[in-house]
Amino acid sequence: MIVLKGAEVSARLKEDVQELLGRFPVGSRVPVAAIVRVGERPDDVSYERNVIKRIAAFGMEARVYVFPADIPAAEFVREFQTINEDKEIDGILLFRPLPAHMDGRLFERLIRPEKDLDGISPVNAAKVFAGEADGFAPCTAEAVIEVLKAYELPIEGKRAVIVGRSMVVGRPLAMLLLRENATVTVCHTKTRDLGKICREAEILVAAAGRAGMLTKDETAEGAVVIDVGINVDQNGKLCGDMVWDGLETAAAAATPVPGGVGAVTTAVLAKHLAQAAWRSRQTMDASEQEA
Amino acid sequence: MIVLKGAEVSARLKEDVQELLGRFPVGSRVPVAAIVRVGERPDDVSYERNVIKRIAAFGMEARVYVFPADIPAAEFVREFQTINEDKEIDGILLFRPLPAHMDGRLFERLIRPEKDLDGISPVNAAKVFAGEADGFAPCTAEAVIEVLKAYELPIEGKRAVIVGRSMVVGRPLAMLLLRENATVTVCHTKTRDLGKICREAEILVAAAGRAGMLTKDETAEGAVVIDVGINVDQNGKLCGDMVWDGLETAAAAATPVPGGVGAVTTAVLAKHLAQAAWRSRQTMDASEQEA
Repeated sequence: MIVLKGAEVSARLKEDVQELLGRFPVGSRVPVAAIVRVGERPDDVSYERNVIKRIAAFGMEARVYVFPADIPAAEFVREFQTINEDKEIDGILLFRPLPAHMDGRLFERLIRPEKDLDGISPVNAAKVFAGEADGFAPCTAEAVIEVLKAYELPIEGKRAVIVGRSMVVGRPLAMLLLRENATVTVCHTKTRDLGKICREAEILVAAAGRAGMLTKDETAEGAVVIDVGINVDQNGKLCGDMVWDGLETAAAAATPVPGGVGAVTTAVLAKHLAQAAWRSRQTMDASEQEA
Repeated sequence: MIVLKGAEVSARLKEDVQELLGRFPVGSRVPVAAIVRVGERPDDVSYERNVIKRIAAFGMEARVYVFPADIPAAEFVREFQTINEDKEIDGILLFRPLPAHMDGRLFERLIRPEKDLDGISPVNAAKVFAGEADGFAPCTAEAVIEVLKAYELPIEGKRAVIVGRSMVVGRPLAMLLLRENATVTVCHTKTRDLGKICREAEILVAAAGRAGMLTKDETAEGAVVIDVGINVDQNGKLCGDMVWDGLETAAAAATPVPGGVGAVTTAVLAKHLAQAAWRSRQTMDASEQEA
């Protein structure tokens, strides 16, 4: 069984990003991401650290905007809009969920779609839904595609089964796989005979967020297994949705947890930042030429 | 085999709409739809006639706005915006594709989402994608759900296979079926072994737009078959994507063409009009109470 390593996928994405940055005119401003966090949730702080490191490693800049968890909603809207309209900010990552006194959905509509690095805007959701390439998909969903592509695992014509239907992974990933011409099935908690359906998969994606919910017994001989789950087991250790033990008797390839898809997500975010900066420069050039 | 008749589904939708209209305050203005057509394409003119008849039969009003096929693009934008902003217009149906000298995508963004009877706005697409109930789905996709519900055919936990991935039927229908807790597979031209996958379906939806592409041989014993195709055969007669002959040896129920899903689409459009009018009155009441 090939172990699909996130680090190798990220290395490939780094090359793509640096190739893109190399096409920026000499003397261009380095792309800048705004990381917007309200409160001090440990998961957010830890992911933020990884994002900053990744963006720096890819040759770009991240600025962190932290607000107290009890900031009045109206004040945070004003602060967010200042960042959103700041011409020096190319992309934005907003940590969610926001505190309960705020309307989280409001920021999906407020965020400028062209700066929306994690694909939360309805404009980007509609583009992903329609199979259009010029929007931003949620980073975790796109990370799955990047793993398959980096390892040159064919997608077209394959039967892909996704377990999970969230707006962060399952639904957008279904659309991304469809765009790559896979035949896509989406399973969820109401699916009957889940094992049988999973065993039909040539590409099996576990994205239910439940530790150990799938095993080698639900895996077809020769399948590619992508584990999007990030859970904590009873010993406090990180684990995925798949039981790793014995998986090699069925799967041809699989992503480990940690070190698989999770290690690619921040690299996709950094790629989105470079793309956002590139596109905004194209737009500016076009409007200058018109002017 | 039960023949699933569009007329019966529409009759049920008429009751729903009249129940909703009955809840409008006494003396309320009748909901008004604007049908916006550029040019004289015979298919559009014929569908328009059906829409007007249906809206009238449901107790509402349709106004037709026709523009010459060679209207300058900028002029049509102005005309469309006047209709879009008209407070007496509750819903809009815009015939597409528009003539080649116009940017059809522009109108998807311009149309007010709350008047968007056929779900072309990205805002409504994003809502359908996310499984939210307060947007408008494309009428044909929703008509499939209405057929299943009117005949009390269970959806939850069923394996649904959709052949076709357009933004008018396949993709939105996948999301609507997912919302009803079906396990959903989307097939298309790149799908391998289509027959095998179709034979796994408890609900089989043919939405590829190709006459006779599926037969009883691709239909599981006891399946519910929904035929969304509207094609013209070599004798000039309307036919669906399914070959009807012999289907009764496999399917438990099926929609005919004509007289199946196609006969429900305008009823869904009329339902959307009543809903649009209802929601705009709710919003107005709320803002009056605030004022």
